[in-house]
This record gives sequence, structure tokens and C-alpha cells, in this order.
Amino acid sequence: MDKFQKILVTGFNKSGLDKDSWDQIKKFTRGLIFEPAADVDCLFSRFNRIDKKIIDSFPKLKYIGLLATGTGTVDLEYAKKKKVTVCNVPGYATESVAEWVFALILEHLHDLEKAKQVAHKGDFSGDGFTTSEILGKKFGIIGLGRIGFRVAQIAQGFGAQVTYWSRHRKDKAEKTGLKYESIDNLIRTSDFISLHTLTTKETENILDEKKINSLKAGAIIINVSGMEQVNIQALMKRLSKGDITFIFDHPDEMKKENVKKLAKFSNCLIYPPIGFVSAEARINKQAIFVSNLENFLKGKPTNKVN
Amino acid sequence: MDKFQKILVTGFNKSGLDKDSWDQIKKFTRGLIFEPAADVDCLFSRFNRIDKKIIDSFPKLKYIGLLATGTGTVDLEYAKKKKVTVCNVPGYATESVAEWVFALILEHLHDLEKAKQVAHKGDFSGDGFTTSEILGKKFGIIGLGRIGFRVAQIAQGFGAQVTYWSRHRKDKAEKTGLKYESIDNLIRTSDFISLHTLTTKETENILDEKKINSLKAGAIIINVSGMEQVNIQALMKRLSKGDITFIFDHPDEMKKENVKKLAKFSNCLIYPPIGFVSAEARINKQAIFVSNLENFLKGKPTNKVN
Repeated sequence: MDKFQKILVTGFNKSGLDKDSWDQIKKFTRGLIFEPAADVDCLFSRFNRIDKKIIDSFPKLKYIGLLATGTGTVDLEYAKKKKVTVCNVPGYATESVAEWVFALILEHLHDLEKAKQVAHKGDFSGDGFTTSEILGKKFGIIGLGRIGFRVAQIAQGFGAQVTYWSRHRKDKAEKTGLKYESIDNLIRTSDFISLHTLTTKETENILDEKKINSLKAGAIIINVSGMEQVNIQALMKRLSKGDITFIFDHPDEMKKENVKKLAKFSNCLIYPPIGFVSAEARINKQAIFVSNLENFLKGKPTNKVN
Repeated sequence: MDKFQKILVTGFNKSGLDKDSWDQIKKFTRGLIFEPAADVDCLFSRFNRIDKKIIDSFPKLKYIGLLATGTGTVDLEYAKKKKVTVCNVPGYATESVAEWVFALILEHLHDLEKAKQVAHKGDFSGDGFTTSEILGKKFGIIGLGRIGFRVAQIAQGFGAQVTYWSRHRKDKAEKTGLKYESIDNLIRTSDFISLHTLTTKETENILDEKKINSLKAGAIIINVSGMEQVNIQALMKRLSKGDITFIFDHPDEMKKENVKKLAKFSNCLIYPPIGFVSAEARINKQAIFVSNLENFLKGKPTNKVN
């Protein structure tokens, strides 16, 4: 197996990977640098932009290793034209995010913030609490990719009636008891809705004003995808009625003024983007990232995206 | 169908049941009172003590309806001797409690209290969070009654390896993939342990010093049963090592000084006893309570406990 001459790390630093991973990576290269040099033949990247200019600045470049799932930051076509292979890390956080969705739902259903507060104060009466169950409720999944499907499975474990809408029907998933329905029906009739579409031109504003207005009273909507998929103005209007709950975890990618406005609604719960940060996901991510590197050198690239 | 002459309500008041339930109950009696009278033939009770003296004070008593699962407050033998039928309300909160167990686990695994706090402050970086998954972990259930079994099923939905210990082997449960093991093994090797034994002489102190010392480092123990089952002194000693997490929700039944001492450990999470308070459980409870009453009058008592 050949080695790289020089790996340049961009978009993250030493703390981005554990020592074990660096030790393995060092076996696959003669040099590892954090400042650009002309003779770089392998580039590591995370969320930073890799455009034509950057690709052109490394004439010996053969491989770009992305320590992320998203590939929108890289000019994949141009890399291909220049015979640069780009590999990403998909699916490493599926379980982490799916369990996170239920953490958010159950925190809300069981009023845990208030429960902890009263217990801290020594009030163990339990007075004034009424919780709510998932069992038997209608649970709609929008977007049945890896994460959407895993959320569906766990919801089935809780005894929910799970339906999904996705761009394409998924026969395999339907064999496990998942029911397909139109997005309009799903939105109109679900008690819980979990959004798992990728942010693309097609899904932008997928929760538009009409759909938001048609949400069932009492519905709980969880969005651990990008907020570009939601019409924020229509959401605020509906939240002001007080008859739905909206939970999301990507305030970091939004306009600050919109986050501030949403934060004023007691029925809008905002979390930091920590769905994917489980210890297990970190291990998965590095294992895939390192094996992508090794497999490329062996001539059998894995998770190639261009 | 005959009717009762006079129902006396003790242990709860009008707010203990919804209007619909009271309306139904009124169809089964000629009188409904909240202060004792001699000619009472039906007694409602909740957690209040019904001893020989009270039973003797109502010579016409035929039926005691318990608006609770526990029957330890009633002298069942004496009631039987006096030909008084006692019926309770079992299983009404199975789902409520089982979902509560996962609410508590996930709140801890995903650091939700801190997550909400940083988000409130406008910090959406997600820095400093590392969560943990249920998938693939060993999940031990102690006591495989209704609730224990339901917790086991949901844990399977999360992809945990679920084992149980119970006084008796449960063939039906084992056919669903649950594995039986000795309580010592279960405690020594589980990542999660959920306690679902009823508080009896046999289960008192079931988590004794030896067992608490044998808990796996990193284990998370959830007790939504009574704390009589746990050796508090040994628990405190183990908590002080900082290598386990203990979560419980019945501080109300404990000595205040013990709760105060436990509350000082950051790895001991205390909640009020609200596992059983779902809206659905309230509906189930009243439905069973009222149908018990009706079935007794029809000569076919249900949920008879003596």
C-alpha cells in the first residue's frame, strides 16, 4: 500500500480527532501538517469551503477526506475533473440523533425541567403535574432516511402508530409496519411530527404556511434538521395561538433575530445542536474517516461522493 | 342490577375523579357522602388506612373500592371475614411509568438541563457536550411485572441488550428475546438497571451493600419503586466514588435527612413522584375504578384482592 506524501489538515485541529486516530493516520502518510504547503496530496476538511481556487492551489492533490456527512462545502464536480477523490462520513450519528429526538419529546411530555426545579426546592408532592404518553398516538416521520427510519423504529417500540412521508416509497420499511401517507395527511393528523429531510432546494420551506396552519391542535413538532425547511413567519403566527409545540436544535444556523422571536414563545423549545455528539458517534465518525483514508490508498475508496 | 344505599368517599375528594366518573358512580348508588354515616354499604378509599375498627364501624359494608393499586392500607383478611369485597385498580399507569423511566434516562444521557440553560443564554455552540447512547448497552430489569416488562420492551426498541431477574422465570417474556439472569450477575454487568420490584418484606434492602458495591463503574440505576429496597448508607458511600449515577422519584416516602444527604451528590438525580400522572393513566384509573363498582353490583367483581 502506497502512502500519502503530505496530509494538510483544515477545518479542524488536533482536538478534532482522538490520539488513536492520529496514530493510525500517521501510518498512511510521510507528513502531516496544519499550515498549507504546495506539495500536499491529501486534504482533510470539515465544514470549511473547498472551492476551485483551493483545489488548484494543490496541484498534487489526490484525495479530500471530509470529517462530516455534508458535502455542500466542496466543489465536487471540479474535484472530479481534477481527479481528486472526495469521501465523506455518512451515518455515524444515526443512533445519537434518533435517541436525541426521544430525549426532547419525553423531556417535554414529562415536564422534566419543572420536575427537577420543584425537587431541588424540596417539593416532592408531585402536585400540578399531568404528563402525556406516546403509546397509541400517531407519530409522523417526514423524510425516511437513516435517521428518520431509526426514529420510526423507536417510536414503534413506544407503541405509537407510525406513518411516514418520503420522496420515494420504502418497501423494506413498510414491511416493518410503517405506513406511507401523503405529506398533507400526515401533517394534518399526526400527534407527533419529526422532520428528517435533508436541506435541499426541494425541501426548503417544506413546512410552508398552509401546512403549518393545518397542523392538528396539540401536535408536537420536532425539527432536528435545518430550519430552512420551515416558514418561520407562519410558525410564529401558529405558535402565538398556543395550540402546538415546536422543538428544534439548529438555532446556530438561523438569523439571531428570528431565534430571539421564537424564544419568546413558551411553546417553542430551543436546544443547542448536540444531537450528534454522543461518545459512540464520535468513535464511529473517526473509524469511518480513517478507514476511508486507508481504503483509498488500497485502491478501493469507500464513501466516495464524487 | 341492585344499587348501593350509601357510598362514603374517604382518602380523596371531589377533585380525585372527573365529573364523568362521578356522574356514572351516581347511577350505582342512592346516596354519595363525604362524612361517615352508620348505614354506609360501600366505601371508597385511596391511601388511607382501613383497619378492623373502621370496617366494624360500618355494619352494612359490602364493598371497598380502592382508587389505587397498593392494597397494604386495608386489612384484607378482616374484610374477607366480614364478607366485604375489596377491589383495587391495577396496571392503570403501566405505560405512564415505563415512558417516565426513559424520560429520566434520556434527560441524563443528553444533559438536557444544561442544554436548555446554555440555549436560554444564547449559547448555541454545543461546546462541551458529549452524550451517550442506549443502543447496544446492557439493560437489566429487576422485577418483571407489568411495568418492568413494558420498560424491557421499550429498551428493546432502543436496541439495548435486555436481561431480567424476577422471583419467577417468565416464559412468555423470554420468547420476546428477554434473557433471564441471576440478580448478582445482572447487577455486576449492566450499564442500565431499572428497579421494578414491589416493596415487600422480601424485596426490602434488595439493593444491599454487597450488590451496590458490585455495580459496574459507569452504571446508571433508576428506581421508580420504593427506596426501602435500597441500602441508603451503602448507596451514599458508592455515590461518593463518583462512578455510578442513581436516579429516583420517591423522595416523598423517605426520611428528609436522607433525601438531603442524597441531594448533595451531583450523580444522584431526584425527581418528584410523577411517573404515574399521565392524562391517559388518569383516564384508565377512573375507568377501571368505575367498572369495578359496576361489576360488583352485577355479581361479577373484577380486580378483587381479598
